Amino acid sequence: MSRNGYPLAEADLLPLSLGAALLGTGGGGNPYIGMLRARELMRRGLSVEVLPLEAIGDDERIGSVGGIGAPVVGIEKIKQGQECLRALRGVEEAAGLRVSALISAEIGGSNSIEPILTAAYAGLPVVDGDGMGRAFPELQMSTFFIYGLDPSPGAIADDKGNVVVFETVIDMYWLERFARHIAVDMGAGAGFATAPMRGAYVKKVAVPGTLTQALEVGRVILDARKKRANVVDRVIDKTGASLMFTGKVKDVRRELRGGFAMGEARIAGVDGHAGAEARIAIQNENLVLYVDGRPVVMVPDLIMNLELETGEPITTETLRYGQQIATIALPAHELMTTPEALKVVGPKAFGYADLDFVPLKLSNPARTRKTAS
Amino acid sequence: MSRNGYPLAEADLLPLSLGAALLGTGGGGNPYIGMLRARELMRRGLSVEVLPLEAIGDDERIGSVGGIGAPVVGIEKIKQGQECLRALRGVEEAAGLRVSALISAEIGGSNSIEPILTAAYAGLPVVDGDGMGRAFPELQMSTFFIYGLDPSPGAIADDKGNVVVFETVIDMYWLERFARHIAVDMGAGAGFATAPMRGAYVKKVAVPGTLTQALEVGRVILDARKKRANVVDRVIDKTGASLMFTGKVKDVRRELRGGFAMGEARIAGVDGHAGAEARIAIQNENLVLYVDGRPVVMVPDLIMNLELETGEPITTETLRYGQQIATIALPAHELMTTPEALKVVGPKAFGYADLDFVPLKLSNPARTRKTAS
Repeated sequence: MSRNGYPLAEADLLPLSLGAALLGTGGGGNPYIGMLRARELMRRGLSVEVLPLEAIGDDERIGSVGGIGAPVVGIEKIKQGQECLRALRGVEEAAGLRVSALISAEIGGSNSIEPILTAAYAGLPVVDGDGMGRAFPELQMSTFFIYGLDPSPGAIADDKGNVVVFETVIDMYWLERFARHIAVDMGAGAGFATAPMRGAYVKKVAVPGTLTQALEVGRVILDARKKRANVVDRVIDKTGASLMFTGKVKDVRRELRGGFAMGEARIAGVDGHAGAEARIAIQNENLVLYVDGRPVVMVPDLIMNLELETGEPITTETLRYGQQIATIALPAHELMTTPEALKVVGPKAFGYADLDFVPLKLSNPARTRKTAS
Repeated sequence: MSRNGYPLAEADLLPLSLGAALLGTGGGGNPYIGMLRARELMRRGLSVEVLPLEAIGDDERIGSVGGIGAPVVGIEKIKQGQECLRALRGVEEAAGLRVSALISAEIGGSNSIEPILTAAYAGLPVVDGDGMGRAFPELQMSTFFIYGLDPSPGAIADDKGNVVVFETVIDMYWLERFARHIAVDMGAGAGFATAPMRGAYVKKVAVPGTLTQALEVGRVILDARKKRANVVDRVIDKTGASLMFTGKVKDVRRELRGGFAMGEARIAGVDGHAGAEARIAIQNENLVLYVDGRPVVMVPDLIMNLELETGEPITTETLRYGQQIATIALPAHELMTTPEALKVVGPKAFGYADLDFVPLKLSNPARTRKTAS
């Protein structure tokens, strides 16, 4: 508990995985399996400390690791466990230094847990924050790269012992291209580590407090279930999200293309939305929500589906016909909506040439997104 | 001229490129462009020494570099020039050492010249020998890997400045898979370096004297042309090859698949072969020669096409309808026909499940292949 951090306890892992699944906006991989893996480690006595951003020294070197691949593969392909650790060691060797803490590139989904697992193995703390405040399908889509992190060295490692180091890459798009194809070779599921960052840089560009935010949202979901309260209402209450749609999934189209899960879901409105139709475009994550053909929420703003009954966050690979869902939305962190950021994570970056980013209008404008309350 | 080597002169480059094209058995990329690049370097004063295998010290470290990609791309895609040098530096850094000489993994085609170019840039000698005695389409198909070279570290570099290091790979098939896909990303043409080898190992497993062999065959071709002699006869005379077929190309099918040029050519017999039909199966190189449906020469034995009139070696990407060609064959070096080698470079390794390797019977059994005469 040095530097005003707090230790992650075994009991934190379930709420963290729930909150991370929600912030995953449908993607980032299902964190449940990672949660089980982290629980095993903690039961064996390994522990991890969460450090607030401001506790990092300017000259510290911070590493970032995560899984890379198609989320749908993550459910069935058993991880060896130390994929990310081997990738981290590859990057450290190439950079000629050791990192003193780890940070998640994306708090959404399983990549909220991967840095915790690797931190436990390596005896390092994790930083309370991430590079997206959500999940996104490609490596370059984090504030780390958007604001100028050198794309090399990076490294990728698989369950078999293979480690590939991206020693010098000329930009983050080449890094993403190389890494994605190697990830497909590695069975569409591998561990990734990006170049170590100086502490001063991390403090400037990381979306702050998102690990704690995920943890607290998860606690609200579990608490509401226990009290048989309306989970969706309680989540909206806690996060300041807007309820965009409630409905029943009537069609899900999904395919694996180039290592990504691409597709869309159609939802027939119920309750206040009876008669309306929503459509959600997907590339690993929920990208654009259309209601009756009109785009109402778009990347980088967060589009999140919850099961209406249980408040269970629904990832795109678990979306299925007949589910009753609530679609809620949150504005992206301001670091994700600058002109530089929109070039990388705005609708045009995902091929929606006709969509200019229109920020989500909060249903209750007095409430803004809080990172940790 | 230390260690009983000889210096490569500018005048050697044209015959070397011709001989290498012939030994490329249709593949290995057209060496002509590499020859032009080497000539430029030599005109700028850079020189390269050719060392006999026996001159290498047991504890020296020998590097191996070459181009990787589809040969057909090599004709149109201009090389930056130092792709292989950057790959070599990547491997040296990962291995924590510097090499003292370079050797070609395949003497056939452009990869006979790439080590010479890199040696000129790096101020190193090249070794008179290679890992195939011919050309083959995949990395693992060299004596270096067949007899146990550690597949990592390896490195690949492109014309733009990207360098990817295969830090740890569990076997040569994974190395080939990763490298091939990165090569496709890099535009199907890149520079590759494999793990440094101890001198003692190179002396044991390299096919000896093949650089000199290529050079001398090339000289024979040029000399025969000058004297208006029959080039094909002179090449057969020099190398001890067997004339397998003479005919006219009547059909060529070629496609790029997974970074390889796959296909086949059909040839209608002329002269002594009138009425017969030959078929050559291709994966970058000529793999199997069928005459009237019967396999008569197969990998790893060498199947080489020459233009009947000029004796010009014909690579698979320059094969075209109407060409009059002679198909000649040479037995592979004995290092390529051991049981271990046949697992990697025999007909079954290329998907010909029904073909057991039957060594080429020389038309004149008294003549065996000489590596340098």
